[in-house]
Amino acid sequence: MNKPTILTGDRTTGPLHIGHYAGSLANRLQYQETHEQFLLLADSQALTDNAHNPEKVRNSVIEIALDYLAAGIDPSLSSICLQSHLPALTELSMLYLNFVTVARLERNPTIKEEIRVRGFGRDIPAGFLCYPAAQAADITAFKATVVPVGEDQAPLIEQTNEIVRRINATAGGRILPEAQAIIPKAGRLPGIDGKAKMSKSGGNAIALSASSDEIRRAVRAMFTDPNLLRVEDPGSIEGNVVFTYLDAFDQDQDGLAELKAHYQRGGLGDGKIKARLEAILQELIAPIRTRRAQLAEDRGYVLDVIRAGTDRARERTEATKRDVVSALGLFQL
Amino acid sequence: MNKPTILTGDRTTGPLHIGHYAGSLANRLQYQETHEQFLLLADSQALTDNAHNPEKVRNSVIEIALDYLAAGIDPSLSSICLQSHLPALTELSMLYLNFVTVARLERNPTIKEEIRVRGFGRDIPAGFLCYPAAQAADITAFKATVVPVGEDQAPLIEQTNEIVRRINATAGGRILPEAQAIIPKAGRLPGIDGKAKMSKSGGNAIALSASSDEIRRAVRAMFTDPNLLRVEDPGSIEGNVVFTYLDAFDQDQDGLAELKAHYQRGGLGDGKIKARLEAILQELIAPIRTRRAQLAEDRGYVLDVIRAGTDRARERTEATKRDVVSALGLFQL
Repeated sequence: MNKPTILTGDRTTGPLHIGHYAGSLANRLQYQETHEQFLLLADSQALTDNAHNPEKVRNSVIEIALDYLAAGIDPSLSSICLQSHLPALTELSMLYLNFVTVARLERNPTIKEEIRVRGFGRDIPAGFLCYPAAQAADITAFKATVVPVGEDQAPLIEQTNEIVRRINATAGGRILPEAQAIIPKAGRLPGIDGKAKMSKSGGNAIALSASSDEIRRAVRAMFTDPNLLRVEDPGSIEGNVVFTYLDAFDQDQDGLAELKAHYQRGGLGDGKIKARLEAILQELIAPIRTRRAQLAEDRGYVLDVIRAGTDRARERTEATKRDVVSALGLFQL
Repeated sequence: MNKPTILTGDRTTGPLHIGHYAGSLANRLQYQETHEQFLLLADSQALTDNAHNPEKVRNSVIEIALDYLAAGIDPSLSSICLQSHLPALTELSMLYLNFVTVARLERNPTIKEEIRVRGFGRDIPAGFLCYPAAQAADITAFKATVVPVGEDQAPLIEQTNEIVRRINATAGGRILPEAQAIIPKAGRLPGIDGKAKMSKSGGNAIALSASSDEIRRAVRAMFTDPNLLRVEDPGSIEGNVVFTYLDAFDQDQDGLAELKAHYQRGGLGDGKIKARLEAILQELIAPIRTRRAQLAEDRGYVLDVIRAGTDRARERTEATKRDVVSALGLFQL
């Protein structure tokens, strides 16, 4: 009657925003009831492209743990654990790097795209090129069979499974399970300016800890239909960020369908649709913000949660490492 | 009054041969009196190009430890330690990979040459490309300031020091010392067939555990001067393996100089010079072979030596890891 294991988590490069909520955090609240869930605070992975800014990576550890707890992650159901404190992950990473070629890493579409976006060119840090092997270590060390990922990250799971098959073939048995990617229905939320990626550094995000004023200002500034000049004109919902967000957060989907029809026919101004979205976001974020502020007062509790989750994770990942070492017939003292 | 620390060791891919003795082991017998010496049984590094043959890597661990002890390494002076059992090394390796670019690793002359020799091309295992960063982790984790290497390996020490400088710059202090390469006077011994590399797999090596018969046969088969057809002809000592070995092992260098002169002038056949070399090698290897056979009977003792050395190494390497993590300001639970 074991529940299937999910591994998920976030790079610790800044607090979470409502894009994270829609894309992953909301689902995790469900999964923690049905799955054994590990939430990895991926500080080591964050260093692969932030090695010269370790302070940002360090400070984000507590920020994200606060976001998790404030959003409703229950540490008695989910284990919040810290990647850098799980040495089995680096041991398996280094081992897996021997089972994947440089050419294969360079062909990985996720890596190719991220190299392009970050402008690395040939000066890509080796750790960044290697992170698919590190991610394979993360996933397999937990023996996770379910990994929720964005659509653009699916090739990483395929690469993980290639490594799994090689390890199993060398060991002559099914030591590690293959993992299945779950791609959430809600795609990635755009920024409030309509750009594809919502990010704190891009200044186009609404933080999960946003104040009431910040939410109001962000919704007012939100990109809609630039061709809608008068209320009576028909408006477009394609690329209209307000509707994209309403799709993600509005529970009343019938009401939303009517609203869309009205907007498209004309006679409904941006003020109305923004008011609706703002009310929804204020209602979503207010309790998270309150709880987050309370938790932030008790850093000791948050550290205890991370310590306990990391202890559970350490037990699991060390056991897997021992399994792999033993199955491959490596030397054991 | 701390002695300087030396890190040295061997990839566990087969028992050692007399080339290892001349090139490194003989020096280590000296260093253990004057330095704090760690001898790394590099089983993790051995996997970077032997991942699909873990059995060879495993079996060589004890073989090399036996070679060390039989040759005179004193475990009360030197620490024999097992790389795969020192997790701080993989943690530092993964960290250092963020401080070196893929392009820089590919430019490393040692890596370029080894890729060529192994015929990897684009199918180089990622772990192999990354091994200079892993070696930097090995060296710095011990805070070794002296690293004896072959001439062809000197670029690896330069790469280590580049990483050291980046870590220190990011940390804002001299956390890690730079290391100095010591290149032994005796260059690399050729194989008995005259090929540049003596190796067990090449069938042109004399093992440190060679039997008396094996030594005799190897010396008889040794490549000399192919143009020396009659004893009275002048012979060449250039590329003459017997003389190369005599240079490495003959303690009587005056006698050797006379022998060379005689050989070059003519009247000295290969039989004579081979007899001299064989006597020297028999005398060198006989006590090593005897002691090795005794030690091989007591596997428990050898394991205890490795365990004790690995415990000392673990203490040292974990302390360094903590220093680095703390100096970089990474999160600590």
